[in-house]
Amino acid sequence: MIPVAGIPEVAPGDDLAGLIAGSAELLDGDVVVVAHKAVSKAEGRVVRLAEVTPSDRAGELAGDEDARRVEVVLREARRIVRTRGPLVIAETGHGFVCASAGVDASNAPEPDAVVLLPVDPDASARGLRDRLIELTGTRVGVVVTDSFGRPWRLGTTDVAIGSAGIPVLLDLNGRRDAQGYELHATQIAVADEIAGAAELVRGKLDGVPVAIVRGLELEGDGSARDLVMPAHRDLFR
Amino acid sequence: MIPVAGIPEVAPGDDLAGLIAGSAELLDGDVVVVAHKAVSKAEGRVVRLAEVTPSDRAGELAGDEDARRVEVVLREARRIVRTRGPLVIAETGHGFVCASAGVDASNAPEPDAVVLLPVDPDASARGLRDRLIELTGTRVGVVVTDSFGRPWRLGTTDVAIGSAGIPVLLDLNGRRDAQGYELHATQIAVADEIAGAAELVRGKLDGVPVAIVRGLELEGDGSARDLVMPAHRDLFR
Repeated sequence: MIPVAGIPEVAPGDDLAGLIAGSAELLDGDVVVVAHKAVSKAEGRVVRLAEVTPSDRAGELAGDEDARRVEVVLREARRIVRTRGPLVIAETGHGFVCASAGVDASNAPEPDAVVLLPVDPDASARGLRDRLIELTGTRVGVVVTDSFGRPWRLGTTDVAIGSAGIPVLLDLNGRRDAQGYELHATQIAVADEIAGAAELVRGKLDGVPVAIVRGLELEGDGSARDLVMPAHRDLFR
Repeated sequence: MIPVAGIPEVAPGDDLAGLIAGSAELLDGDVVVVAHKAVSKAEGRVVRLAEVTPSDRAGELAGDEDARRVEVVLREARRIVRTRGPLVIAETGHGFVCASAGVDASNAPEPDAVVLLPVDPDASARGLRDRLIELTGTRVGVVVTDSFGRPWRLGTTDVAIGSAGIPVLLDLNGRRDAQGYELHATQIAVADEIAGAAELVRGKLDGVPVAIVRGLELEGDGSARDLVMPAHRDLFR
């Protein structure tokens, strides 16, 4: 796990893959893990709150907090899962369930702005990967991450919201453990574990949005969309 | 992230710390990550299904599956959170919410047995840590893990169910990001990210229950119990 230092603050239209390739020595098989905020900023997914007029519903939920921020959350949400005061747990258009539908004010490019998730984080990961391969000639995987809370457990862990060039789920169905017991329906969410591992070295406050996870020898190519539980299997809708 | 090879199948009463110390070169600051099954087996937390008489409730839930296994799940559960057929999501006595209350038939020491979670995984981690320090003279942290599913996302990730000698939550409350935005209530569940990172190199089927995560430079000492969301903050009870 190697943090990539030296990437400057990202602005709309920046060639993020170029910035990464210029700051890191990549090897075949590396997984390049990128915090989505860098991706979102490069893609211009930033909303200035001065340009937002909150709805009545946003005002009710917000209470003493900024109703404009809550308005942006409601616009990003496909479904509201839970609310408590201004805290909104929502399902995004991608199908991810997370706080504030992924809308976040921390690490925004300016104080009065919020950063949204990329429109299609799998496509973002794919684009970064294609460009990194073009620039460096190395076959890398890319994971785009966000920090999600979890029911029943405190704290956030970074998870994969976009992926290209690695398997997202490692499927152990039908394989046998050391005792010959057949593992049923066991799938490991390796893309999420990679995202979390990268955060351990990225640091949250040092402005290091990228880390490399090296040596995993993963074969496959999945998208983070495959990590979304289908509604018919979801016991917690 | 370094897998520790050479640890034999663990039996009740085994000195697990001794087996680890004999198979790995530990350094100050290492986090030794141990799959709970090795801990549970050393602690004798194994139930032979031949000795279990299922209740009516277990029989109803089990359907065509083994009612004795479901009976053990019900005994380990403090609260049933969801059921669908023989799938039981339950809160354990420790407060963890997971499938089958942590009862698992894979990697059991014999075909007709199931492995339970340790009675007190934080105490297990503490005991392993004390003994590793005694045996090796190095100041290590210990994390005891299990594979948990998650609402809304497919696949399992390894999380911390026991911990000693590392912080489990990295608290960013009141610190500021690169733009001066104050991070509110942001806590990173580093113990869970360490657990997941270790699984990436442990492999599920190769009988490697231990991995070392090196170089994190973490300061603190928390218990995995601190990762359990208090009921009054839990939006998903």
